[in-house]
Amino acid sequence: MKKKKNYIPCAFRETDLALERTPPPSKKRGVFYREAMRGDIRFSALSVSDDAKREGYAAGRTLSLSIPAPFLWSAEEKGAVCDAFRLALQLFFPTPPVRLLVAGLGNRRLTADALGPLTVEAIEASAALPETLYAQFGLAPTTRIAVCVPDVFSKTGIESVRTVEAAVRLFEADAVLAFDALAARDKERLFRVIEITDTGTVPGGGVKRGSLSLSKGSLGIPVIAVGIPTVVRTDGEHFLVSRDMEEYVHSLSSLLAEATNTVFGDAPRLEDSEISAIFREAGA
Amino acid sequence: MKKKKNYIPCAFRETDLALERTPPPSKKRGVFYREAMRGDIRFSALSVSDDAKREGYAAGRTLSLSIPAPFLWSAEEKGAVCDAFRLALQLFFPTPPVRLLVAGLGNRRLTADALGPLTVEAIEASAALPETLYAQFGLAPTTRIAVCVPDVFSKTGIESVRTVEAAVRLFEADAVLAFDALAARDKERLFRVIEITDTGTVPGGGVKRGSLSLSKGSLGIPVIAVGIPTVVRTDGEHFLVSRDMEEYVHSLSSLLAEATNTVFGDAPRLEDSEISAIFREAGA
Amino acid sequence: MKKKKNYIPCAFRETDLALERTPPPSKKRGVFYREAMRGDIRFSALSVSDDAKREGYAAGRTLSLSIPAPFLWSAEEKGAVCDAFRLALQLFFPTPPVRLLVAGLGNRRLTADALGPLTVEAIEASAALPETLYAQFGLAPTTRIAVCVPDVFSKTGIESVRTVEAAVRLFEADAVLAFDALAARDKERLFRVIEITDTGTVPGGGVKRGSLSLSKGSLGIPVIAVGIPTVVRTDGEHFLVSRDMEEYVHSLSSLLAEATNTVFGDAPRLEDSEISAIFREAGA
Amino acid sequence: MKKKKNYIPCAFRETDLALERTPPPSKKRGVFYREAMRGDIRFSALSVSDDAKREGYAAGRTLSLSIPAPFLWSAEEKGAVCDAFRLALQLFFPTPPVRLLVAGLGNRRLTADALGPLTVEAIEASAALPETLYAQFGLAPTTRIAVCVPDVFSKTGIESVRTVEAAVRLFEADAVLAFDALAARDKERLFRVIEITDTGTVPGGGVKRGSLSLSKGSLGIPVIAVGIPTVVRTDGEHFLVSRDMEEYVHSLSSLLAEATNTVFGDAPRLEDSEISAIFREAGA
Repeated sequence: MKKKKNYIPCAFRETDLALERTPPPSKKRGVFYREAMRGDIRFSALSVSDDAKREGYAAGRTLSLSIPAPFLWSAEEKGAVCDAFRLALQLFFPTPPVRLLVAGLGNRRLTADALGPLTVEAIEASAALPETLYAQFGLAPTTRIAVCVPDVFSKTGIESVRTVEAAVRLFEADAVLAFDALAARDKERLFRVIEITDTGTVPGGGVKRGSLSLSKGSLGIPVIAVGIPTVVRTDGEHFLVSRDMEEYVHSLSSLLAEATNTVFGDAPRLEDSEISAIFREAGA
Repeated sequence: MKKKKNYIPCAFRETDLALERTPPPSKKRGVFYREAMRGDIRFSALSVSDDAKREGYAAGRTLSLSIPAPFLWSAEEKGAVCDAFRLALQLFFPTPPVRLLVAGLGNRRLTADALGPLTVEAIEASAALPETLYAQFGLAPTTRIAVCVPDVFSKTGIESVRTVEAAVRLFEADAVLAFDALAARDKERLFRVIEITDTGTVPGGGVKRGSLSLSKGSLGIPVIAVGIPTVVRTDGEHFLVSRDMEEYVHSLSSLLAEATNTVFGDAPRLEDSEISAIFREAGA
Repeated sequence: MKKKKNYIPCAFRETDLALERTPPPSKKRGVFYREAMRGDIRFSALSVSDDAKREGYAAGRTLSLSIPAPFLWSAEEKGAVCDAFRLALQLFFPTPPVRLLVAGLGNRRLTADALGPLTVEAIEASAALPETLYAQFGLAPTTRIAVCVPDVFSKTGIESVRTVEAAVRLFEADAVLAFDALAARDKERLFRVIEITDTGTVPGGGVKRGSLSLSKGSLGIPVIAVGIPTVVRTDGEHFLVSRDMEEYVHSLSSLLAEATNTVFGDAPRLEDSEISAIFREAGA
Repeated sequence: MKKKKNYIPCAFRETDLALERTPPPSKKRGVFYREAMRGDIRFSALSVSDDAKREGYAAGRTLSLSIPAPFLWSAEEKGAVCDAFRLALQLFFPTPPVRLLVAGLGNRRLTADALGPLTVEAIEASAALPETLYAQFGLAPTTRIAVCVPDVFSKTGIESVRTVEAAVRLFEADAVLAFDALAARDKERLFRVIEITDTGTVPGGGVKRGSLSLSKGSLGIPVIAVGIPTVVRTDGEHFLVSRDMEEYVHSLSSLLAEATNTVFGDAPRLEDSEISAIFREAGA
């Protein structure tokens, strides 16, 4: 049963990345997998049915963007990654939500775990502005955003999933977008994958182990989780990180925020029928 | 009706400080006021009955510590202020709570409003540690602390009072201790008063106007609010601040945190029968 | 001698803004002043000759951009302000420097004084990358940037001007670009002016009084200072600030950094012959 | 030549820790090593003569404090570590310097490299206060402190050693105290050793490789370097870190700063003749 290593249950898993958990797509009933390239960026669409889930998968759709190392990007390269992530967000939000809660999971003081809080810090909480102001400035975005940065249990004594759930209720959100740092198995994937999924997320997955899951199942509304691998777990007490992670974390959190502000602001939607098609074909 | 200036309703009040709102104690039925000195520190105890409240007061007890400017304090001076605040906390928590939620109100990125978040950042969330660890290390503090830093509405789109209320429920707290920056009317009082009260607090009082109140009335458990004046309101759009506020905010938030960690850790209680007496005499 | 109030010597001046110190341009020999509008943005070009200087002016050129309040800007409005500042930088750097030192003056922990450090934090220190890397990535920017954030005397015990001077020598810079927060006399100008000048700057002008000046005179290379008013001085111990300054500071520091990265990166130059003309006409 | 692994030249060394480089003391001429315990804390004093240096050692004295994991320390345990570090500082500064430059090396935004900047942030720059103020407050500390946080080359484009050297000249310092994060070979030593040495330090040793050394040799005044291991280097591109490093870094930087403020403030000196003796015996 060598394969088991790949499909260990969530709480003990070596990796948070779908890309590292997925067996070859043809080998498994109920698992659909498609790829497409856009310049240097690979879109990998994975869909797992409820049946397949029972055999070790998380049911739902995952889109993984494999991107160039976030280093000395030209404006064009940065634009291409930003557009790819905008497109990905659009695929998971075919209809813009009316009240979107954006959550930044993780520990902002720890560089390896700061991706979520840093991203959310740069996202505009449009729900904080009175409707009259929008009218006055001639703006009419469909989506109102509230944000939540719950910090980590070891700092607060309160489970971050519970804090996000409470924020969902207070804000009467109809969807959640959560950013978090992830753990990879292969150090070559650190900062090279942006994963977007509707299968739910376990905060603390990247750096410290959580146990509660943030998902549509528990909240009753769509939960889209966006993650980037920042660490490789080693022995439970230590992890492996990239020497340049500080630059990478800042560069990517800023990009994720900018794309999110654009998608849920009043910018026109991007169109890419081929990417939409592989996403649909994968069973989404 | 000259007096009106002093007793305007909360939402429009010029000052958050009880010291600046209090009329001479003898002038008013249901208002009791006592003072005592400890070295350079003046303890002012105010108690307002439910009856007096109807005439413009917040009912409850307030203890104001008038302290030396937080500048070039010797170790003795710092120790004296720290002890005064420890004593004040003990007076408001005669029995240590079992599950205490500590809230840091305000905007951490704005120096004038950062007192609450900075204080709470330095408070140990003892509830984050498993009970077994306490046993293992031979510790047995009575109080378990969880912390909540709700940030401000303009950044999150969610009322900070609601976030604290949700945290109270999640943590099943039996008391709340809230730190916040306040507005004074007189610029000479900036950073010269530590106010502790059980009359409730309106987050955003210092810098931005809030409307919701955090109080025993709404939460059903004791709410002790600790505030220090950091701004003088001028015209609604601007406020007056001290040139040295950055040093003052850091120095005092660190002192408040240290005293709080001590009071709710396993340190012995301070005793000061005279101060306890003026607090009792004031009607507390 | 009523006029004196307006032309008091630097060390005691009420305002750091040229716009608030300038007498009507026609009234004074050696003082040339021109204005032009670009949409909502007013360009005010001032030039003071060495002669006029002796009568109370700082000799040199100052370009003031009067901008809309940095609040709920649409992408177009933000782009217009960014372009205006790019144009201004180009006017002061007609030939790109080869080794540019960018200095962020002020106290990063104090929101009212954080503009310089926050701006510089987002500026790419291109001198940190080996030449071989530029070649490898096909880049060939003319300008190499090093950055210096000297912090303030009250935190370090070392004059920030001296630290910048030392960095100039270490980096062998051929020009300095310095960002700093300024004081205005009129609170309506807070965050509404971007001032670019080659007349030198006195760090600490905005919040705390400095005495040393950073200028071409002392350094022997061009010193271009960029400032935005963030405070109104009142009585030496206090100042007046805007309730929304935290949002404004972040929004504008991010814009200044983005424009600077663009101008000294490999983006094409903006052209605007009319603005160039008023700048020339003013005597520059 | 198996031993070579242990004594590789500085630029390629696996570890920054003297404890991990030292061969058994008796084995080597010119190398003196002594140990003593104080409660749970081991003092290891190493002295290397100029002769031994030529065979692979850095000449000078190093005192290593092996401390308990900085986790759930009681007030007593914290006090013991703080006292041990105070004692260590006193041994390296038998006569208090008159003008001491304290440098915080490393990258403050990267948790694993933030120890130096965080420590220095909490150290009082007593040189920033006018002498008249000290007189007015009845204080007369022997030592005036200025601080320097040079940031890292990859952020500034200027070598941090050069910036510290410039600060030494500007301040006319007669000694330097530098804090930095270090690399260990053995992950069990992370955050378990405080190393104090007069052999000089290579900033960037912990996380990124530096090449310039900060030492008495280059500066002409005593340079005392204090380091704590925060990472294990693996392959040049990655390193291993502790899951709990954020808590550890904050806890220890705060302790180092407090002890430094005490030693160079007006507190009485600690006396411990046995520890002084082992330090002397080691050849110091």
